[in-house]
Amino acid sequence: MERPQIKFSLGVASYTFRAFPLERAVEMTRRLGVGKICLKDMHLPLDASAESTTESAARVRAAGLDLYACGVIYMKSPAEVARAFRYAQTAGARTIVGVPNHDLLPHVDRLARETGARVAIHNHGPGDLLYPTPESVLERVKDLGPHVGLCLDVGHTVRAGVDPARAAADAGPRLLDVHMKDVTEATAKGTTVEVGRGVVDVGAFLGALRKIGYSGVVAFEHEKDEADPFPGLAESVGYVRGMLASLA
Amino acid sequence: MERPQIKFSLGVASYTFRAFPLERAVEMTRRLGVGKICLKDMHLPLDASAESTTESAARVRAAGLDLYACGVIYMKSPAEVARAFRYAQTAGARTIVGVPNHDLLPHVDRLARETGARVAIHNHGPGDLLYPTPESVLERVKDLGPHVGLCLDVGHTVRAGVDPARAAADAGPRLLDVHMKDVTEATAKGTTVEVGRGVVDVGAFLGALRKIGYSGVVAFEHEKDEADPFPGLAESVGYVRGMLASLA
Repeated sequence: MERPQIKFSLGVASYTFRAFPLERAVEMTRRLGVGKICLKDMHLPLDASAESTTESAARVRAAGLDLYACGVIYMKSPAEVARAFRYAQTAGARTIVGVPNHDLLPHVDRLARETGARVAIHNHGPGDLLYPTPESVLERVKDLGPHVGLCLDVGHTVRAGVDPARAAADAGPRLLDVHMKDVTEATAKGTTVEVGRGVVDVGAFLGALRKIGYSGVVAFEHEKDEADPFPGLAESVGYVRGMLASLA
Repeated sequence: MERPQIKFSLGVASYTFRAFPLERAVEMTRRLGVGKICLKDMHLPLDASAESTTESAARVRAAGLDLYACGVIYMKSPAEVARAFRYAQTAGARTIVGVPNHDLLPHVDRLARETGARVAIHNHGPGDLLYPTPESVLERVKDLGPHVGLCLDVGHTVRAGVDPARAAADAGPRLLDVHMKDVTEATAKGTTVEVGRGVVDVGAFLGALRKIGYSGVVAFEHEKDEADPFPGLAESVGYVRGMLASLA
């Protein structure tokens, strides 16, 4: 059987670099040879002026990176939903990685239809009251427009006892973004480690992404070693590149 | 056809950390989760006292690393050959990665037989007058005892226009050590890059090592970014781990 092509690209979720300013986050991402970045609010403040957001986004793009997404952004009121859409639009980001309260989903859906922005709802694992698993996201968005879907956080998925390859297959076209990480154990106590050193079946997950024709971004979010995350991030990116080269 | 098992392990050639003291080289190697280290003389001086060498080697082992080899060591006289064997024995290293002058090979062979130490002769690429290619090593050692063989430097092999997978197959049991790296091009102008970013067919090489049942060490020697080699080294180790996980 002919294998489908790999259509997704690699990126970095800037939460990895939460202890560093935007310039350093951009510099390290570039050094990895990774082209996509999802900015978290410590690098692109939610409450900054439109001018400041525009200027920061322009600097990221001038450095050669595709600022494809912003987030994770919590949305607890209609005003916060509106702000998130304005912010992403100002930044030129096509995807909002977000956690909207359940009752705000119709509002999120309407703004996604109106603006063309995509909202990838992020599962945060066993401790998350809103979206503990990919299934809990898919169940909530199944009747909404196609621009509202899932940001599958691989680590939190595994921590919730769910197989991320199966979750990706279940999501299909609703899979809009991926946060890639590995974890020490498949329970709530699991913590992030370098990809390849934990319990995640990375090959099965990447194979599932290929199988569903996922064409978005696999964004590494390396939470370990907050003060010095770059080596672990680099090892993780290398691991996935090595696996992809073998799969190809 | 059933695939043979992978029998080799991963290590670091400390030349990677030439801008750092021994303690930092050990610390970064440990952080990678790699268990083997080959020390170059900036980390274990050739002219140090036996006490100092013993003490340094003990510190490396106390940190949980297997100091399996020393080198690369140039040997240009019988006295330098004798010194290299004494030094390795004092350090407790089983393998000398070395570059002995051609006329010293009988002497090297004799000491290897007497002491049980292994001598892995290192090919240094197109500019090397003694051992430019793996073949030039194999040709010189073919009538010597089995303890004298090749340290296949993957980057220099490719820079010399030779396929490292083919070289490993040709070496067979004469392959005693590997210096792993990738290079920008398969000519003398090629320079080291993160494994996976260059022209080396890493999968074919690792497959060849498996096929010949290589049970030694694949030691990463990341020459790029001398002042900050750790991220590139980590990416390289990750890449090979990802490939090995796919191959397994």
